[in-house]
Amino acid sequence: MESIFIAIGTGVLALLFATWLAYRVLKEDQGTDAMKEIGKAIQEGASAFLAREYRTLAIFVVLVTIVIGVFIDIIQLDRDIPKTAISYLIGAICSAGTGYIGMHIAIRANTRTAAAAMIGLNPGLRVAFNSGAVMGTTVVGIGILGISILYLIFKDITVVAGFGFGASSIALFARVGGGIFTKAADVGSDIVGKVEAGIPEDDPRNPATIADNVGDNVGDVAGMGSDLFESYASSLIATIAIATAASAVAPEFDEPKLVLPLLIASVGIVSSLIGTFFVRTGSQASMSQLLWALRRGIYISSALVLASSYAVIQLLGVDDGNRIFLAIVTGLVAGNVIGFATEYYTSYEYSPTRRIAEAAQTGAGTTIITGFATGMLSTLVPVASVVAAILIAFWAADLYGVAIAAVGMLSTLGITLATDAYGPVADNAGGIAEQAHLDPEVRERTDALDSLGNTTAATGKGFAIGSAALTSLALLAAYTFAINPGVTDAKELVINILDPNVLVGLFIGALLPFIFSALTMQAVGTAAYAIVNEVRRQFREIPGIMEGTGRPDYARCVDISTRGSLRAMILPGAMAVIAPIAMGFILGPEPLGGMLIGAIASGFLLAVTMANSGGAWDNAKKYIEAGNLGGKGSDTHKAAVVGDTVGDPFKDTSGPSLNILIKLMSIVALVFAPVFI
Amino acid sequence: MESIFIAIGTGVLALLFATWLAYRVLKEDQGTDAMKEIGKAIQEGASAFLAREYRTLAIFVVLVTIVIGVFIDIIQLDRDIPKTAISYLIGAICSAGTGYIGMHIAIRANTRTAAAAMIGLNPGLRVAFNSGAVMGTTVVGIGILGISILYLIFKDITVVAGFGFGASSIALFARVGGGIFTKAADVGSDIVGKVEAGIPEDDPRNPATIADNVGDNVGDVAGMGSDLFESYASSLIATIAIATAASAVAPEFDEPKLVLPLLIASVGIVSSLIGTFFVRTGSQASMSQLLWALRRGIYISSALVLASSYAVIQLLGVDDGNRIFLAIVTGLVAGNVIGFATEYYTSYEYSPTRRIAEAAQTGAGTTIITGFATGMLSTLVPVASVVAAILIAFWAADLYGVAIAAVGMLSTLGITLATDAYGPVADNAGGIAEQAHLDPEVRERTDALDSLGNTTAATGKGFAIGSAALTSLALLAAYTFAINPGVTDAKELVINILDPNVLVGLFIGALLPFIFSALTMQAVGTAAYAIVNEVRRQFREIPGIMEGTGRPDYARCVDISTRGSLRAMILPGAMAVIAPIAMGFILGPEPLGGMLIGAIASGFLLAVTMANSGGAWDNAKKYIEAGNLGGKGSDTHKAAVVGDTVGDPFKDTSGPSLNILIKLMSIVALVFAPVFI
Repeated sequence: MESIFIAIGTGVLALLFATWLAYRVLKEDQGTDAMKEIGKAIQEGASAFLAREYRTLAIFVVLVTIVIGVFIDIIQLDRDIPKTAISYLIGAICSAGTGYIGMHIAIRANTRTAAAAMIGLNPGLRVAFNSGAVMGTTVVGIGILGISILYLIFKDITVVAGFGFGASSIALFARVGGGIFTKAADVGSDIVGKVEAGIPEDDPRNPATIADNVGDNVGDVAGMGSDLFESYASSLIATIAIATAASAVAPEFDEPKLVLPLLIASVGIVSSLIGTFFVRTGSQASMSQLLWALRRGIYISSALVLASSYAVIQLLGVDDGNRIFLAIVTGLVAGNVIGFATEYYTSYEYSPTRRIAEAAQTGAGTTIITGFATGMLSTLVPVASVVAAILIAFWAADLYGVAIAAVGMLSTLGITLATDAYGPVADNAGGIAEQAHLDPEVRERTDALDSLGNTTAATGKGFAIGSAALTSLALLAAYTFAINPGVTDAKELVINILDPNVLVGLFIGALLPFIFSALTMQAVGTAAYAIVNEVRRQFREIPGIMEGTGRPDYARCVDISTRGSLRAMILPGAMAVIAPIAMGFILGPEPLGGMLIGAIASGFLLAVTMANSGGAWDNAKKYIEAGNLGGKGSDTHKAAVVGDTVGDPFKDTSGPSLNILIKLMSIVALVFAPVFI
Repeated sequence: MESIFIAIGTGVLALLFATWLAYRVLKEDQGTDAMKEIGKAIQEGASAFLAREYRTLAIFVVLVTIVIGVFIDIIQLDRDIPKTAISYLIGAICSAGTGYIGMHIAIRANTRTAAAAMIGLNPGLRVAFNSGAVMGTTVVGIGILGISILYLIFKDITVVAGFGFGASSIALFARVGGGIFTKAADVGSDIVGKVEAGIPEDDPRNPATIADNVGDNVGDVAGMGSDLFESYASSLIATIAIATAASAVAPEFDEPKLVLPLLIASVGIVSSLIGTFFVRTGSQASMSQLLWALRRGIYISSALVLASSYAVIQLLGVDDGNRIFLAIVTGLVAGNVIGFATEYYTSYEYSPTRRIAEAAQTGAGTTIITGFATGMLSTLVPVASVVAAILIAFWAADLYGVAIAAVGMLSTLGITLATDAYGPVADNAGGIAEQAHLDPEVRERTDALDSLGNTTAATGKGFAIGSAALTSLALLAAYTFAINPGVTDAKELVINILDPNVLVGLFIGALLPFIFSALTMQAVGTAAYAIVNEVRRQFREIPGIMEGTGRPDYARCVDISTRGSLRAMILPGAMAVIAPIAMGFILGPEPLGGMLIGAIASGFLLAVTMANSGGAWDNAKKYIEAGNLGGKGSDTHKAAVVGDTVGDPFKDTSGPSLNILIKLMSIVALVFAPVFI
């Protein structure tokens, strides 16, 4: 019992730390009036987005809560209290809350980072990183608190699984809706602003510019946060569920394997908090020193988490403790390897991205072919890492080992997410410095911070994909225990691929990520058109807008594109929830297992391909813009821009959404398991 | 016993028919001297390609023959005669033979079709179609003869599986090597000719022009032929193998289920031969009448094959005859549905391709995004068809039903392949008509034939992919029987996905098509550079080449790009053979089963995505060239050209090669099964 209170305690500690950090960020100087003006417009836009998004989500969440309450809690399990429905609702609210807090700070940290960069590089880094750390510690804090408290109250992990489902639902909307929004605003503002009206990029006269800025926060901060919040919650839930199922007798509440994931998460949180203090650099730091500043924080946290996990395992006296420790190490190593591989394939410091830039010399066609081939090749290391992690973790501790490897991978999430969420803040600070015509020296500093942000964002994306794959597999394992009540030995669980229904499930599962990606890519086009029309209308109807005397209606532009993107994501979103339920009802629980495996395999591969080819195209363009191969404005650059345009929905809409698709399908299966058997 | 002699008899009949058709094609007029000159250059180039390709392949085939003979026949099975090695060698020779014959006729039919089109539309159609029918009937004739005779001699279907492996090896080289060759020649000749030297496309002064023409025959005729030869052979082998394994006692040689596939194939051959006589049209036929002329032949063959299959089943007195008939019908219907869906997604008569053309109005980026999304969406119907076929066929007759559904799908191959192979001949005839400056009326006729060829080629590609998926599944079923000797009931076979080794196998299997596609796409770039260098050298060193007085060394250009493409395909090719063997040895036979399923699912989806997005981009460009949305030379057209460039390796190199990858891996598993258990 104490273990759960320890978990709750660390959760509270994380939130207190986040509050303190947020306070420090918010009391920073906001800079010049021009900067405040721009910052205000972004905040207005972000509020408009969140208001609209949460209104749409509320309907969806209420509907699903009722469905769960009626069909699972009341009809199927004959409960007096709709426990799973309550867990679902709380999970959804928590996920929305983390998104709100993360974005709230990020959009306020943009201007403050730019202002701090006026003083020096280190102050700029500290503000941007601290705002990312607010997000990171909030996610882990709310995650562990939600699960621990619900578990303490309901004493049934299958009920707590509803929390994961709630988190997934919001995550899906945040990632898909946000992903469509950000790219639609980007493309739409370019088409009307740059092409039709002939005004430069990021020009404040363009009503969609703010939507574009908002989009970066919506997609990269809130989207990434809710994505990893879900991975974090689901990996804990899956591990506890497997530990529960694998206990021959009804487990004690203090059964070591049951509380271990919560304690690993707890020491992970504390380690991450300590790690954040090591992220600092000198005033004249080089690029590699900046990168090292962030990496030092992560490495110190990782070392701490390993040492303290080992201690926890020994203190708890877990059976086969060394083997379980090995599984945790495996997960942590796999996550880092995937992160580095992502960086290798998408940073222009390395040959794959440079080869894409060289291919741009022979035109847009060869740029696309080379970039797409690079994305496909880049699946090798992530798959090898996950496969190695599965083999080692399973050898070490069966399915429990696979699940706790996911927990290990995510244990340092507090700080890894901080380095990810740092990226878009630094990016926007750079944009603000440019729009507010700050001193060239300041822009050099924000450029350095931004460039660093691209690297950490790449690593973060790889991490998100890797953890999604491992978490989904852990959920799948928990699901197979759930559909085989009474089985305690993982080796007795069977899903036979040669059963034609399972085979059919697998094929349909493998199909879904393709359809999902196609729908989300098409949605970007549809939503972009809605923005184009709105910008044209404002240019026509608001007097003095082109002369700079009339103020564009930024919020309306944001609201329209929000509505457009949220409407466009209904079909893919509904598919993700309905497909596993339909499969479970029509072909049965084993074919649903086949469907999950098919979706995880093909979704993982597609997600890596799309995210990495998109990232590599982006950076190939940046490499050329840095003055290589002809530089900005050359034909080579134009070809690279085509690659970047294709890469935008790949890396920011479809690719990352696939992470959620596979986790959401898996947790839907777990939550609805009682209905299928 | 009579049944096998019936099969041998139809095989001989098919070859006699092919000989008669070839005689008819070859005695046609070759047209003007200019046409003969161009035709001679293409024939020279094709001979150079085949000579080089077969020399490379000979080494590979001899090596593999020795490996099979030593490790499987002698060491593992302690045989006096290396039966499987002999079967392998014969399979490889037969496959190479069909490729040689098909290409030999096709490159001679090009000029003759152009010449016949000088007389009228119907003569042109007859010559082009007859040359395609030579290929179609040769493939089915050699296929059924090879299997029947080897089966008659060795009386062991696992030995005959070597024949399928041999066919696969050659098919892989023909598809991958040919696919790289054709696109490298295309891209390479464009870069030096159009961009650097400023001479028009298809100009005889460009030494790579002939390589480009040869490429069309190499990729589309020989590649498609060897691909479907392999499907045809492997589906028969798999069905007989399953029937053998499922017989409780050592089966009689006249066991109905054993000989049924050979008899279905026999009546299919006769039905196809009859169908070819119905392919004719009037002299002033419209596009839809031309299409109907080809379709009528296929429909009549299909009706005949259904009626005669039903009769054969009744005559043999097969148990559950009606159910098995249902499985055959299912396969035939699924093949046609996939073919039509492919046409829908890639023809500019329908909205998906038109939407890509419209997206080209906003630039190359949106063209690529829309086209790629279309390709991904287009996987829905093929997967649904295969899934429905699996469910129905398995319900009807277990795994035997799935295998015989593949036989049913391929039963009319004699005529469906004829309509596919017709396409490139008509295409080249059009090119020759243009190069030889024939009467505009003739070019109108060849354009009509060419346009028809695009439609039938699209249908053919869909058919190739669908049959590859179903054949691979049939081979997988045969493999699972092979690794479970003694098991006769399909329901007792188990491959458990929750076994971590199987799961790992599945992940690695799903990974392979991504790596394979990446490597083949990169290979196109590498081989294209080799051509670029050779063309530059010839321009520099051969005097009078630009004035038209010096004759370019076409054969050397072809030889160099052949060498380049064959070298570039060693890595992906070796991967396809070695991966399943390594998996079987390292993780064992069940994980290899998981690997096959992962590869089939992800390979099938990727193949459809790449083939269809490529086809749609190609036709979106043609739609604009037909005068829509600004026509040739507009910015919209330029954007569409980028789509077409990206689509080239998608649809002609990587996409179709995936068909062979999944079949080759499956047959390797089947042949090596005795070693793993």
